[in-house]
Amino acid sequence: MSLQHTIGFIGTGIMGLHMARRLAQAGHRVTAWNRTQSKAEPLEEFDVHIAANVADAAKGADIVIVMVSDGPASDDVILGEGGILEQMGEGTILLVMSSIPMETAMSQGKASQVCGVRYLDAPVSGGEPGARDGKMTIMAGGDTEAFKELQPVFAVMGRSTHVGPAGTGSLAKLANQVIVGNTIQTVAEALLLVESGGADPGAVIEALKGGFADSPILQNHGKRMIEGNFKPGGRCQIQLKDTLTAEELGKSFGVVMPMTGQARVTYQNLVENGQGNLDHNAAYLDVARRSGKEL
Amino acid sequence: MSLQHTIGFIGTGIMGLHMARRLAQAGHRVTAWNRTQSKAEPLEEFDVHIAANVADAAKGADIVIVMVSDGPASDDVILGEGGILEQMGEGTILLVMSSIPMETAMSQGKASQVCGVRYLDAPVSGGEPGARDGKMTIMAGGDTEAFKELQPVFAVMGRSTHVGPAGTGSLAKLANQVIVGNTIQTVAEALLLVESGGADPGAVIEALKGGFADSPILQNHGKRMIEGNFKPGGRCQIQLKDTLTAEELGKSFGVVMPMTGQARVTYQNLVENGQGNLDHNAAYLDVARRSGKEL
Repeated sequence: MSLQHTIGFIGTGIMGLHMARRLAQAGHRVTAWNRTQSKAEPLEEFDVHIAANVADAAKGADIVIVMVSDGPASDDVILGEGGILEQMGEGTILLVMSSIPMETAMSQGKASQVCGVRYLDAPVSGGEPGARDGKMTIMAGGDTEAFKELQPVFAVMGRSTHVGPAGTGSLAKLANQVIVGNTIQTVAEALLLVESGGADPGAVIEALKGGFADSPILQNHGKRMIEGNFKPGGRCQIQLKDTLTAEELGKSFGVVMPMTGQARVTYQNLVENGQGNLDHNAAYLDVARRSGKEL
Repeated sequence: MSLQHTIGFIGTGIMGLHMARRLAQAGHRVTAWNRTQSKAEPLEEFDVHIAANVADAAKGADIVIVMVSDGPASDDVILGEGGILEQMGEGTILLVMSSIPMETAMSQGKASQVCGVRYLDAPVSGGEPGARDGKMTIMAGGDTEAFKELQPVFAVMGRSTHVGPAGTGSLAKLANQVIVGNTIQTVAEALLLVESGGADPGAVIEALKGGFADSPILQNHGKRMIEGNFKPGGRCQIQLKDTLTAEELGKSFGVVMPMTGQARVTYQNLVENGQGNLDHNAAYLDVARRSGKEL
């Protein structure tokens, strides 16, 4: 039997709703707040208390989880007047699971420290299915002791790994996005090569299964490329944003990222061409277009 | 009980030796030839007959398998005087499992057709362990009926997939190499990014396990990058050769490959820097060097 926590949960959107529900079902006392309150109300049947404002959700909590839309929205609820940090007691844990910029996480970490609050940035991947089934990948940066204490809480939501100090959770999530975007474009180039040379690209995907060239991207995004299925999933415009953010960070650290730069060109082309809402596997369409192929 | 074939096996190097042994152990009548005959002799204890010349190995065979070092070496044994095609009867199968250029496979396919011989180019991946354990990935292009008939023979050596006409086996192998080389560089960029930002790169590899960014390259080559282990494995000079070949083919088909071009720059840098014999995961060293990092 694991410890029952008092959890304030801020932001019950598509993923947050599932996460808050799972925490309540695991026996924690959860108080939730959402900007549009009606979206939080389905949680009442799981004995989640719905707070009228952020401060009421944070007050008296051992753990406050933030799952709002982006960095500025997280700063608003955490640092603003009547915000989370004002309410949290010494030694409690602030856990930001939104995808936010690394610098935002670093400064939230510092502000938390000033207030005696232990901070972790812990963005996730896995989408709605992952949130629903407790199968998310959680990349956590920040207070190591707090990370250990949170193990039973994380376990309700997915698989968690501690990757470094505050901000590195966001950095790991960005590395995830970069690898995904670059691999999609690599697969696009390879499939267009074999197709143009007269091979059956579906058979090639099958042939490479289980070898060093194999990946979830090849089997999933690659198959959808040759089926002509570019429904999102992860959109090109988000992939472009993440890729630009990674390049900027890389630049600030002095890291050259030539491969990532090529993926950025592709996603830029797609967004400029009005295809920003297609799945990022549409890299295939851009490489085909640049190769003068009719699709 | 599968049909017993009379197999001529040409080229018993590191991988060929295992392949010929497995075929003999599976009950086929195997006659082997190798340029340096002593290297074939360990096969005698498995009832493999050692031929004095190529012609003797090919004569009377239903299937001749070629596993020599490269395209020109395969042309020598197949097309030369006293070569394989001169000896093979109508309807027999010539199976070239060496990694050879696509054009070489296409012209061997045409020459075979003229002689009434059914041809497949079927390069493999999986290295010595794959050959030893019968776990190779076999990418086959050419005669579809011959491919079907060879299923029991392929099964002794690994998993086979038919990908298109003669030459496309080689093309699929090249796609394999391109995906591997590009993914290695992508992983190098991502790991240098997270390291430079203060994250533990080993923890990030662990965190990404099982998600869309995961791959055998991340888990294997990526881990060895951060351990500083650049022992081959696949060498940079081979990766450069394969990448250049893919780019040339892409050009001839009109396919732009900007990502692949960036990987080529990296492997070129490494070869020019005298590091051509390191494992291709040394892409990490080149990206680090270009980023001004001391390693």
